[in-house]
Amino acid sequence: MSLDAVLARIDSDLPAATERLLELLRIPSISTDPAFKADCDTAADWLVKDLQSLGVEAAKHPTPGHPMVMGHIAGDGPHLLFYGHYDVQPVDPLKLWDRDPFDPQVEDTPKGPVIRGRGAADDKGQLMTFVEACRAWKAVNGALPCAITFFFEGEEESGSPSLIPFMEEHKDALKADLALICDTGLFDSRVPAITTMLRGLLGEELTITGPSKDLHSGMYGGAARNPIRVLSKIIASLHDDTGRITVPGFYDGVPEISDELRAQWDGLNFDHGAFLGDVGLSQLAGEEGRSALEMLWSRPTCEVNGISGGYEGDGFKTVLPSKASAKISFRLVGDQDPFAIRESFRKMVTDMLPPDCSVEFHDHGASKAGQFDTSDPAFEAARQALSDEWPDPAAYIGCGGSIPIAGHFVNITGTTPMLIGFGKDDDQIHSPNEKYDMESFHKGIRSWARVLDALT
Amino acid sequence: MSLDAVLARIDSDLPAATERLLELLRIPSISTDPAFKADCDTAADWLVKDLQSLGVEAAKHPTPGHPMVMGHIAGDGPHLLFYGHYDVQPVDPLKLWDRDPFDPQVEDTPKGPVIRGRGAADDKGQLMTFVEACRAWKAVNGALPCAITFFFEGEEESGSPSLIPFMEEHKDALKADLALICDTGLFDSRVPAITTMLRGLLGEELTITGPSKDLHSGMYGGAARNPIRVLSKIIASLHDDTGRITVPGFYDGVPEISDELRAQWDGLNFDHGAFLGDVGLSQLAGEEGRSALEMLWSRPTCEVNGISGGYEGDGFKTVLPSKASAKISFRLVGDQDPFAIRESFRKMVTDMLPPDCSVEFHDHGASKAGQFDTSDPAFEAARQALSDEWPDPAAYIGCGGSIPIAGHFVNITGTTPMLIGFGKDDDQIHSPNEKYDMESFHKGIRSWARVLDALT
Repeated sequence: MSLDAVLARIDSDLPAATERLLELLRIPSISTDPAFKADCDTAADWLVKDLQSLGVEAAKHPTPGHPMVMGHIAGDGPHLLFYGHYDVQPVDPLKLWDRDPFDPQVEDTPKGPVIRGRGAADDKGQLMTFVEACRAWKAVNGALPCAITFFFEGEEESGSPSLIPFMEEHKDALKADLALICDTGLFDSRVPAITTMLRGLLGEELTITGPSKDLHSGMYGGAARNPIRVLSKIIASLHDDTGRITVPGFYDGVPEISDELRAQWDGLNFDHGAFLGDVGLSQLAGEEGRSALEMLWSRPTCEVNGISGGYEGDGFKTVLPSKASAKISFRLVGDQDPFAIRESFRKMVTDMLPPDCSVEFHDHGASKAGQFDTSDPAFEAARQALSDEWPDPAAYIGCGGSIPIAGHFVNITGTTPMLIGFGKDDDQIHSPNEKYDMESFHKGIRSWARVLDALT
Repeated sequence: MSLDAVLARIDSDLPAATERLLELLRIPSISTDPAFKADCDTAADWLVKDLQSLGVEAAKHPTPGHPMVMGHIAGDGPHLLFYGHYDVQPVDPLKLWDRDPFDPQVEDTPKGPVIRGRGAADDKGQLMTFVEACRAWKAVNGALPCAITFFFEGEEESGSPSLIPFMEEHKDALKADLALICDTGLFDSRVPAITTMLRGLLGEELTITGPSKDLHSGMYGGAARNPIRVLSKIIASLHDDTGRITVPGFYDGVPEISDELRAQWDGLNFDHGAFLGDVGLSQLAGEEGRSALEMLWSRPTCEVNGISGGYEGDGFKTVLPSKASAKISFRLVGDQDPFAIRESFRKMVTDMLPPDCSVEFHDHGASKAGQFDTSDPAFEAARQALSDEWPDPAAYIGCGGSIPIAGHFVNITGTTPMLIGFGKDDDQIHSPNEKYDMESFHKGIRSWARVLDALT
């Protein structure tokens, strides 16, 4: 049976596959920082070349931002599309990294070997699990198992400004029977998962201006408006004492989960003590009366991701600053309308401004939540294939993060997305010392070989 | 009459005096930033040499921080001490400066020529007004008018950690009949001032820690504690809706001003509209029911001077940060006890912490407010001398800033401080584009010559 030969090939080729991933990880393709624009280009070129080595007809497509990589190979059976992103998060604070984030290495840890470096888990390592599965398949069988379109983005970590126009323009080339997306996680080390619920994301940055310039707090303090105080008051008012978000209309379209789903989630016996304990916490800090998995998967949130104002250096400076700003993100569920919430949030902030203050808003993207159709028999086939690879059977799960691409496939090309990934909660994505377990990489490649076998 | 000759000498020597000040301003003696330690030393050396050129026996005295400069010259009549500081504030944000802050220049402006550069007004330019007055006096009369001790500090902008121990150690050398301090301002362009009320200062930095590391807000948001939200809530709770500060016991020892002083302040016809208008504001933002001068001179304050947490770079990063911090300063009046307030503030913050959060405090200095005795006839003599130089008569005023040295003279050497300065509200001290009006410098030097004449 050819699957066994493919799996054996994956096992024997793992050292070479790891070297290829390390090469890709060395390219600092930080999409949100213009200083790394050329590196994003280099990463795209690297992928084009790698796809071409598989016999895929691949090319880099310019956009107003970072390029897209598209490739296609013909074949019999279903037409699959695979999506991943080659851009990575910024690395600051750099001093908290134990190694150069772009000098990745395989490290031995008490929990086993890990691939350490920015992008190892999000998303270069995940992206390569599928590419390596294809490489092994081709090495054993001389061809890929079916028609496959590859679609790699370089702006996922910076709000994907070019994505929708590009997908609209290449709608036909991006149509497929199923869109495989590898940017999610396992449920835990033993339980693989297909993610079928995703929260949406609304990103807002606000800058409050009070005085026209920085003032001496001794000379003006007590009489002049302080924008840090104004901003703090606004942030403090975004949640009530029970943890509910106070933006008017925010909960419009937020559904309660079904009894059936609740029962399935309860059956997962999620250990929120361990989940929080891993990051030095012990108690849930969200809405009163909600379970941990509800908070993480099915309830909307409002979080402050950054705040800045006045003197932030060493020592002390008695400045009364002109400006203060914050980056705020909302995770959305159900039918919440990101554009209506943006408008309501901005109105709420503007209404709270005291005299002599102004506010500027900067839009950092808006996407609706998604709940995906799993009626296609491909889902049960894929779930079975995943269950064959891992210790415990695969689960359909929710995900707190936002993967807007999934909704775009539904809305633009009419393709059902299937989200399979091998990340773990402790991968430290978006944080210093990001890693991807060697087990995730190895079993991830094997998982895709099994899924390809099951779907074709 | 020798005073006229001294004033004439000051007028003719002004270009050379300006060049000397520019030379001192070129030394980037930022005391709060260890990177500029050698520059603080260089500034101290420059002053020692300049004092020596006046025949003053001067030396640099090492401290655990930046050095003190002390000089003494014997003479008849009263023994005066003069205090100034040679260190300057940091310059960030550098991009808001129209020129290199340490490449000072005389610039023509619509309001007349100004000396532009970091430290021009605070305090190098002010310090040099007295030194230049002495230089002119010596040039005309061959000697200074009386015994004078010069005392220059290099840590005023960084909390003066070495000051009290140094003054205790050199108590005898620093004893004098009157301590002249030049680090305050005019009441306005026409009205010179002797400052007789100063607010105290308590500086606190707090860092809230929630999770043990930065988290992905999609993965943890809604369930994990966010320290920026905790910090914002604490800051928002420091004032009530009427602008009063809520730290328990904060108003203990805050006096109401006397009817007499209130009448005098009312007589100054302070134009708070113009004061705020200069910095883009229109309305007083302090305690309800208090006048502008009360807010600025006689009421205590609590201001946030800086806030920081999470991702502050360009673009967006959905991080849920481990830490958030703020720098907070309290201006104190009357008998408020800075140490009791520090304790009460820290307890209030600690009591507000939700589960899983910890707080670290960093002490940035504490000084009591001062109200200085003006019964010595030297005050009326100095007030008359200042009135002779400026268009309108001099006033006794309050000052929102904190000049702890004044209290140290009272408490450590038993010397009455007399605070005379020539800064203006629009000097942008502690801000980008700091300047000192050429008029302040020129008439400041002339004022000191008149004061020296009046006191001796």
